[in-house]
Amino acid sequence: MQEIADDGEARLREAARRYCNWGRWGPDDQAGTLNFITADHVRAAAGLVRRGRVFSLAIPFGQDGPQTGFLRRFNPMGFMLRDGGDTCAAVTAGVPSGVGGGDDVILLPTHAATHWDALSHIHLDNRMWNGYDCREVTSQGARRNDISSYRDRIVARAVLLDLPRSLGEPWCRPGQAIGPAELDACVERQGVGVGEGDVLLLRFGHMAMCRDRGAWGDYAGGHAPGLAFDSLGWLFERRVAAVASDTWGVEVRPNEIAWTGQPWHRVAIPQMGLCVGEIFDLEALAADCAGDGVYEALFSASPIPFSGSVGGPVNPVAIK
Amino acid sequence: MQEIADDGEARLREAARRYCNWGRWGPDDQAGTLNFITADHVRAAAGLVRRGRVFSLAIPFGQDGPQTGFLRRFNPMGFMLRDGGDTCAAVTAGVPSGVGGGDDVILLPTHAATHWDALSHIHLDNRMWNGYDCREVTSQGARRNDISSYRDRIVARAVLLDLPRSLGEPWCRPGQAIGPAELDACVERQGVGVGEGDVLLLRFGHMAMCRDRGAWGDYAGGHAPGLAFDSLGWLFERRVAAVASDTWGVEVRPNEIAWTGQPWHRVAIPQMGLCVGEIFDLEALAADCAGDGVYEALFSASPIPFSGSVGGPVNPVAIK
Amino acid sequence: MQEIADDGEARLREAARRYCNWGRWGPDDQAGTLNFITADHVRAAAGLVRRGRVFSLAIPFGQDGPQTGFLRRFNPMGFMLRDGGDTCAAVTAGVPSGVGGGDDVILLPTHAATHWDALSHIHLDNRMWNGYDCREVTSQGARRNDISSYRDRIVARAVLLDLPRSLGEPWCRPGQAIGPAELDACVERQGVGVGEGDVLLLRFGHMAMCRDRGAWGDYAGGHAPGLAFDSLGWLFERRVAAVASDTWGVEVRPNEIAWTGQPWHRVAIPQMGLCVGEIFDLEALAADCAGDGVYEALFSASPIPFSGSVGGPVNPVAIK
Amino acid sequence: MQEIADDGEARLREAARRYCNWGRWGPDDQAGTLNFITADHVRAAAGLVRRGRVFSLAIPFGQDGPQTGFLRRFNPMGFMLRDGGDTCAAVTAGVPSGVGGGDDVILLPTHAATHWDALSHIHLDNRMWNGYDCREVTSQGARRNDISSYRDRIVARAVLLDLPRSLGEPWCRPGQAIGPAELDACVERQGVGVGEGDVLLLRFGHMAMCRDRGAWGDYAGGHAPGLAFDSLGWLFERRVAAVASDTWGVEVRPNEIAWTGQPWHRVAIPQMGLCVGEIFDLEALAADCAGDGVYEALFSASPIPFSGSVGGPVNPVAIK
Repeated sequence: MQEIADDGEARLREAARRYCNWGRWGPDDQAGTLNFITADHVRAAAGLVRRGRVFSLAIPFGQDGPQTGFLRRFNPMGFMLRDGGDTCAAVTAGVPSGVGGGDDVILLPTHAATHWDALSHIHLDNRMWNGYDCREVTSQGARRNDISSYRDRIVARAVLLDLPRSLGEPWCRPGQAIGPAELDACVERQGVGVGEGDVLLLRFGHMAMCRDRGAWGDYAGGHAPGLAFDSLGWLFERRVAAVASDTWGVEVRPNEIAWTGQPWHRVAIPQMGLCVGEIFDLEALAADCAGDGVYEALFSASPIPFSGSVGGPVNPVAIK
Repeated sequence: MQEIADDGEARLREAARRYCNWGRWGPDDQAGTLNFITADHVRAAAGLVRRGRVFSLAIPFGQDGPQTGFLRRFNPMGFMLRDGGDTCAAVTAGVPSGVGGGDDVILLPTHAATHWDALSHIHLDNRMWNGYDCREVTSQGARRNDISSYRDRIVARAVLLDLPRSLGEPWCRPGQAIGPAELDACVERQGVGVGEGDVLLLRFGHMAMCRDRGAWGDYAGGHAPGLAFDSLGWLFERRVAAVASDTWGVEVRPNEIAWTGQPWHRVAIPQMGLCVGEIFDLEALAADCAGDGVYEALFSASPIPFSGSVGGPVNPVAIK
Repeated sequence: MQEIADDGEARLREAARRYCNWGRWGPDDQAGTLNFITADHVRAAAGLVRRGRVFSLAIPFGQDGPQTGFLRRFNPMGFMLRDGGDTCAAVTAGVPSGVGGGDDVILLPTHAATHWDALSHIHLDNRMWNGYDCREVTSQGARRNDISSYRDRIVARAVLLDLPRSLGEPWCRPGQAIGPAELDACVERQGVGVGEGDVLLLRFGHMAMCRDRGAWGDYAGGHAPGLAFDSLGWLFERRVAAVASDTWGVEVRPNEIAWTGQPWHRVAIPQMGLCVGEIFDLEALAADCAGDGVYEALFSASPIPFSGSVGGPVNPVAIK
Repeated sequence: MQEIADDGEARLREAARRYCNWGRWGPDDQAGTLNFITADHVRAAAGLVRRGRVFSLAIPFGQDGPQTGFLRRFNPMGFMLRDGGDTCAAVTAGVPSGVGGGDDVILLPTHAATHWDALSHIHLDNRMWNGYDCREVTSQGARRNDISSYRDRIVARAVLLDLPRSLGEPWCRPGQAIGPAELDACVERQGVGVGEGDVLLLRFGHMAMCRDRGAWGDYAGGHAPGLAFDSLGWLFERRVAAVASDTWGVEVRPNEIAWTGQPWHRVAIPQMGLCVGEIFDLEALAADCAGDGVYEALFSASPIPFSGSVGGPVNPVAIK
């Protein structure tokens, strides 16, 4: 665990100033760093498909998910509108016996399972991405920076950084902070470049650790490995389009700065406009990459475009 | 509109017998025709990306969707767990002023907006796909054939069949049935092949018609153009992996067979195991295809894998 | 229909000043005019029970309710957690065949059907009842003036004022405003007194009109008969404990003051602290009162005490 | 704790036969033992009000309730449609600054907090109360025996039986079964009669135990004191209208009969047609009764009449 800096607020504000992309893509932009993905980038990413193997990076969306009520989030619930018992009971007037079907409704906290944070998700100094007033996020949803902005923007090259495996560890330990040095070392060990417009898939091994112990435990909001606060500059300089991890919150917990919870988020999302993904299941993909030594893939992960929503449930796929 | 056959039940049962794929992929299969998509197919599909242009085929998920209560389906609702007003009111103890964020919950009927039908969605003779007892779909969801079976199976080549445009029409008329002859003619006019493992995107122009009149109207469950009942053999023989359309229910309405509602579905899903997608927005893609004359694309459309769910909300993308 | 006053805001502010009860029951009060109900009042009210006849004043809570989406309100929805089909399918491990049960979940907008407004429901000048800051009503609910304050306070004498019947009309017409003169006349015709601590049940006949036409139509938020703005003084002086009506919003619509919607509410709830009930079904009770000439009853109507909620679903009963 | 009878199924079936009220109130009855409450009974009950003191018997409906996911039940959730932050942000077009309000939606499992079981809640041999087929309880709710049947039937005399206090104990111990002997002894010690049409409020002290330990713990579904299986005859003979307790499930847990869970329920509800209430907070009422020695009260507890629902949330009041 990192020591708590006394000058936390100052560090945060300095990073917020340095890594601010407001206006970079015009005053009306609502997509942030996804703008780094160009058509050329997409075309090149498609060229990475060599075997035709598809990996889903979503965890199951259901009652055995990781949520325990923290931040009022709960695991997705399903309710049936019609089911097979109804089919057998022939309850619908005018329908022949044995003919029927199932239908259902899902109640889904947008950040409960695999998801993207929308750019309206995090506020600093009453502002959100690109300088918009956070009061544009009302009880009726976000009028700016909602998840719809991401609807057709997340097809790109993905680079998997398997942080523990490259070190011969099963997983990073809770509280372990990964900063520029560790990122550079992993990139070097894996022999893969990270460039403008890439989606970084960060495997900390935290989901592997949960599976090993047979329980999510405090996965949602507890101690976890993750990015160090000073990774912000590294990401900013490389112009990555998005970062997603196999943890609940990407950044290390306990947090390094005590002034506010999730300090990395306070800069990455409202200031840098970074697209952030969480609760990605990278296990099968990582095993495959370790096997063939290829750590890049075509990546497709368009969130469900809920109007006004501040988060985007998604079933991301990597295609090798 | 087709005339109503007196021998509807017999026609349906005959088609159910002829186009049955039960056991084709083993007694435990829950993915149906998606098995036609092979790694080779995926690899070849990736080769279709020439310009790096991405099209989202989802409609907005929100209160201005097409549902009007038919089949108890409603438009998705969002509820905020936190919003920008809370950020400004500084309601969270221990959080600095102006620091906060948004969080939300979505209530989503799985068939309300753009979605795949799961193979547990339709029952005939108390059976569902691959012969499973429909009573495996209980109040707790589907224990077989739930949408999870599709989680990593829908990356493929897509072929857009733009039925009205190839005829110089803005849209097919409600009640217009598209059968083998019309499909063949469209394929020929467009100069595109349809083969094993392809995903067919069928544009009937119904969404264009709704936009032209400025209202969804009876889009959800009313009269609509769509596939004729005798298209089943055409699809079966070509071994297509999936079919999706810009209508509420793919098949023509009013239905051609009076014995039961949605007769095409009764064969396509429980007997053939066909992956069926509905409420796809094909307008931007179709305009692009008309422009460059290329009617094929890489297609990626993995549904949210809700455990036990009989439908799969999705934001499909086509990449050209 | 009343004419729209040019000086609407001034009239509203004058009434807000004159009929303000802030502090009357101490700085911490959250129950408002329900404080007028004393133990003596309750005891006397119990003495009104002469025949032992019970009238439920709730409409059915379900999909055939009056809501049409106005103010994002919808009719209550029910979802089954277990049902009789599950019992027959014997889906629960270890349970004997044929043994089972039903269980369900309700999704209920608190103001959708018969309900009390909580004192946190209406804000004027960023304040709510007793002067509390309206920002105490956050995404997490009301920290003050929630419906829990009413949990054990609504047992009292009720007086039914049947406004149209006393005039020989089937119902008051939409837009008809009932002010002090009409209230006094009705009281006199019915020969019943209205005093401190009473609950007034105001029958405008609006629900009867809807039943007569066979449809709710614009019941929720459309034109309706109701209390005139100048009824506020009449209610204030009589120290009534609560007012409930058979309309969607008690006060006349279209509203008499254009400055803000529901002007009567802006004074009655945040300033006077009046307990207000809406969508009460008074038809059976009114018919009985017309029959025996007794317009008073013991009244019991404790809302479901949802923590933090700004409205209280209730099944009120009048006992004669 | 009771020993497990080897002949559990036989005992249950014998009780089901002996205490069956099917047809007693006609073939169409859906109200069961509430039929024992007559107008005379109601009138007499009103005469019990001597001091005008009102006791709410509901626990708070909210996130700090007792549910932990057992039987898929969760604690009620509230979502805001509008709040005070919106008022301050002046987000509604055409509304003056500072004018606004709160509105909300509740998601409520009907058996999560204080509630009545509907007569469709429990099934035995694929039947429910009065012999109706349990398949009338579908995904769309109960077509018979739903909670609406209770809408105007629960105003009566209540008798509180304070089982532990009459023995000088703070609470009955988990697993302690209360049968006819204990009931008779309590009635005698308290000097109160139990007769036809009465509502029995059974205080086992279980909620007091939870408060004493500062946690609900396993209150929902764990070990608990409660009625013994052989209390069924005692209740049947006395023609009580309803039974409610301060426990999760009225009957003793672990159950006395292993053949099926909640064996007392299998007879009481589908066979006897007994109105059963659970999670009633009897602490304040019991303290008052111990103080004045008066164990009877006027009782009013009409559930929210959700159409088709198998349970009825309620805020019951006792009036002394």
